[in-house]
Amino acid sequence: MNTIEKVAPSGTETGEIIQNSQDYTLFSWSKQKGTNPIAVEHAEGVYLYDYEGKRYIDFSSGLMNVNIGHGDQRVTDAVMRQMQQVSYVTPSCVTKPRGELGKKLAEICPGDLNKAFFTLGGADSIENAIKLARLYTGRHKILTRYQSYHGSTNAAMTASGDPRKIPVDSQQATNFVHFDLPYLYRWEYGEENLLKESVAQLERIIAYEGPNNIAAILLEGESGSSGCLQYPKGYLQKVKQLCNKNGILLIIDEVMSGFGRTGKWFGFQNHDIVPDMIAMAKGITCGYLPFGCLMVSDKIASKFDDTYLPIGLTYSAHPVCCAAAFEVLKIYEDDNLIENAAIMGRYIDQKIDELKTKHPSIGDWRNTGLLGCLELVKNRKTKEPMAPFNAKPDDMVVMNKVAAKIRELGMYTFVRWNYIFIAPPLCINEKQIDEGLAIISEAISIADGEVILNYE
Amino acid sequence: MNTIEKVAPSGTETGEIIQNSQDYTLFSWSKQKGTNPIAVEHAEGVYLYDYEGKRYIDFSSGLMNVNIGHGDQRVTDAVMRQMQQVSYVTPSCVTKPRGELGKKLAEICPGDLNKAFFTLGGADSIENAIKLARLYTGRHKILTRYQSYHGSTNAAMTASGDPRKIPVDSQQATNFVHFDLPYLYRWEYGEENLLKESVAQLERIIAYEGPNNIAAILLEGESGSSGCLQYPKGYLQKVKQLCNKNGILLIIDEVMSGFGRTGKWFGFQNHDIVPDMIAMAKGITCGYLPFGCLMVSDKIASKFDDTYLPIGLTYSAHPVCCAAAFEVLKIYEDDNLIENAAIMGRYIDQKIDELKTKHPSIGDWRNTGLLGCLELVKNRKTKEPMAPFNAKPDDMVVMNKVAAKIRELGMYTFVRWNYIFIAPPLCINEKQIDEGLAIISEAISIADGEVILNYE
Repeated sequence: MNTIEKVAPSGTETGEIIQNSQDYTLFSWSKQKGTNPIAVEHAEGVYLYDYEGKRYIDFSSGLMNVNIGHGDQRVTDAVMRQMQQVSYVTPSCVTKPRGELGKKLAEICPGDLNKAFFTLGGADSIENAIKLARLYTGRHKILTRYQSYHGSTNAAMTASGDPRKIPVDSQQATNFVHFDLPYLYRWEYGEENLLKESVAQLERIIAYEGPNNIAAILLEGESGSSGCLQYPKGYLQKVKQLCNKNGILLIIDEVMSGFGRTGKWFGFQNHDIVPDMIAMAKGITCGYLPFGCLMVSDKIASKFDDTYLPIGLTYSAHPVCCAAAFEVLKIYEDDNLIENAAIMGRYIDQKIDELKTKHPSIGDWRNTGLLGCLELVKNRKTKEPMAPFNAKPDDMVVMNKVAAKIRELGMYTFVRWNYIFIAPPLCINEKQIDEGLAIISEAISIADGEVILNYE
Repeated sequence: MNTIEKVAPSGTETGEIIQNSQDYTLFSWSKQKGTNPIAVEHAEGVYLYDYEGKRYIDFSSGLMNVNIGHGDQRVTDAVMRQMQQVSYVTPSCVTKPRGELGKKLAEICPGDLNKAFFTLGGADSIENAIKLARLYTGRHKILTRYQSYHGSTNAAMTASGDPRKIPVDSQQATNFVHFDLPYLYRWEYGEENLLKESVAQLERIIAYEGPNNIAAILLEGESGSSGCLQYPKGYLQKVKQLCNKNGILLIIDEVMSGFGRTGKWFGFQNHDIVPDMIAMAKGITCGYLPFGCLMVSDKIASKFDDTYLPIGLTYSAHPVCCAAAFEVLKIYEDDNLIENAAIMGRYIDQKIDELKTKHPSIGDWRNTGLLGCLELVKNRKTKEPMAPFNAKPDDMVVMNKVAAKIRELGMYTFVRWNYIFIAPPLCINEKQIDEGLAIISEAISIADGEVILNYE
């Protein structure tokens, strides 16, 4: 998302590494000309290091996935141990880590969410959740939220309410219905009315679409890369009640919000509900290896005791990935990372309160645990965003300068439109948070310069 | 696919490992009751070993992916080295193995296939190929073959002509058109007429669907799990000519047939064509870690120099997977595995010729390099299959006995309907082939017993 800064000189190791990647590989979600990547040489804890020894504090945990931090030797050792035994078996065979990991996940998940189907990532988990929901209910429609992200394969991308699907709009899958869920900062009538109206709207949409046509409602446990657009208090409970009343399944996407990111194992646990399926990825292996999981309730799973389960993939239940995930789950517990996420989240909240008084460009700060987002505005009264939704390059002049400054000062984080994400590894400490926020503070001074009109 | 044999006794380590997997994880493409998996303790070369020390010769290389054989320390070491540096960076950053691997793949691939988009597996590669073909051409339809397999995500499964999609038929994606391509064993009019009629039919279908509506034709480099249903000689060249004539892209799926499996780097190289995109997975890392790649021609890639490329996934260009793939490609070359595949393939062909004289149940043997399939029949004259296409459990009584005997005698391989696949790791030697074929010979004696009527 954030490009900027000059490319490393040719003839250097950095130059060659970048050149090879540009000549022979494609870059995601961007034009191919003008990419300006960091060449990462090694990484440790909350820091990335490039080939010239420059250090970057990783304030978005990669793509909100490296929750335990980088370079943890315990994961490497676990991967090694499994590879010395067996690296690959077909999913019709079993290995020790497969069952161990399934059992551990069943312990972590509430309710009767006891059956794991192991995938390769979030999109896969979502694809299979959708398939199972339709098979289980015999219904066809999936209801999802605008401004959400569920992955880039055909069904997962269609389910998403993200502008990354707009360029491939003619390729969307059928029977997905999106609804709009406003967020508090841009809603004028108070949180209680936001809850009331959002629930009423969802009830109407269910009626319009026909409750008996709806297989599932699919929602993120907490909103992430769309801007941490939080649910009104009580909303998910109301959704679950509507699901129960109408025989609709509730699929919660915990790909980004799961595994301690929000200060609980799963984001939905901040809302006191139990879904029917949980889509997992990212924090389950913290990116050390690719992995994902769809956790399914006993109720749904038992339908396939005597009925053919038509899902599968070559790498399902990959032994090495299962072993990595099992070790990562242990690290969350051994290092008290989930508690630390909650504590550090509160610390960041305090510090951002202080930054708000200094920086008129900060319009809003939304955060749960360590899943947080600063929203920058040109004017606090009108709330005009510093860059609009799905901003074009021309709209990004100021925000690109902010992003370039962040990188220059030694931070890697996710800057999108007028959002700056703050979602560091859960092992971060107060000193490192101070270091990161100092960088952000200096960078958004550039945006403050744009706040010229009607500042109260 | 093949279940059978009694479950390990409870109270043993094997029993616990299997029990955990059955209690807490879902098994692909099967009913959940009655699974009877092998618990694999370790693996080396062409052999798997269970927890009771029983050895199985792996005659399908896992799922036709462990081409270099199991337990190769060089891959483990490469994984280790990369994990000591950095395990995960976002796809907007680069690492050394990313560019190195892209460059190596560009060397291996013919023509102007020089740009790699790294994915997690075959389905991902296909999803992105379809997306790019539609974007590049501005057309919407994808033409594909019945009796093919391209993966289990929404678009990939729809593209597949495999009965695994039948249970989720109502969930198919739009704008896929399937055509029928008979195979020689079940075609009564000679190979030359098979070529002529297949091409004529494809020409008619292109006309019926409208050439300007067709973005791409998607075909496997060689047919694999559908039964190694080979193309008539010259067919792929004719298809490429039709593509050129009509501005249609040719996407070749090399997920199963790529990386030496057919005695060449890619299956299509047996047919002297160069496609526009190659979907890769499986043999690219041989299952040591999950990985995939979509290789794209410069012609297509250059469209996205100044145009936003709307594809991406969290784990794209995963550093550890790139490092594993780079090492695996080196092993193919260092160990002359591709040459060995061609030589061992010819050896198997000879040996199967001998088995044919002994076993009246062998109807056909189709093989390219080490991608081979025995087709068993009840009667050589009528060619009635030992079990029909998409066989129900009741149709599988004999074949299940054959599969059980194969397992009992110490072999793991892929048995599907009336097909027994022979696709061992490319490092196999003649002695190991003899060992495996002896098992298959003994097992199919059971099927010979069914050949009772009208045997010529």
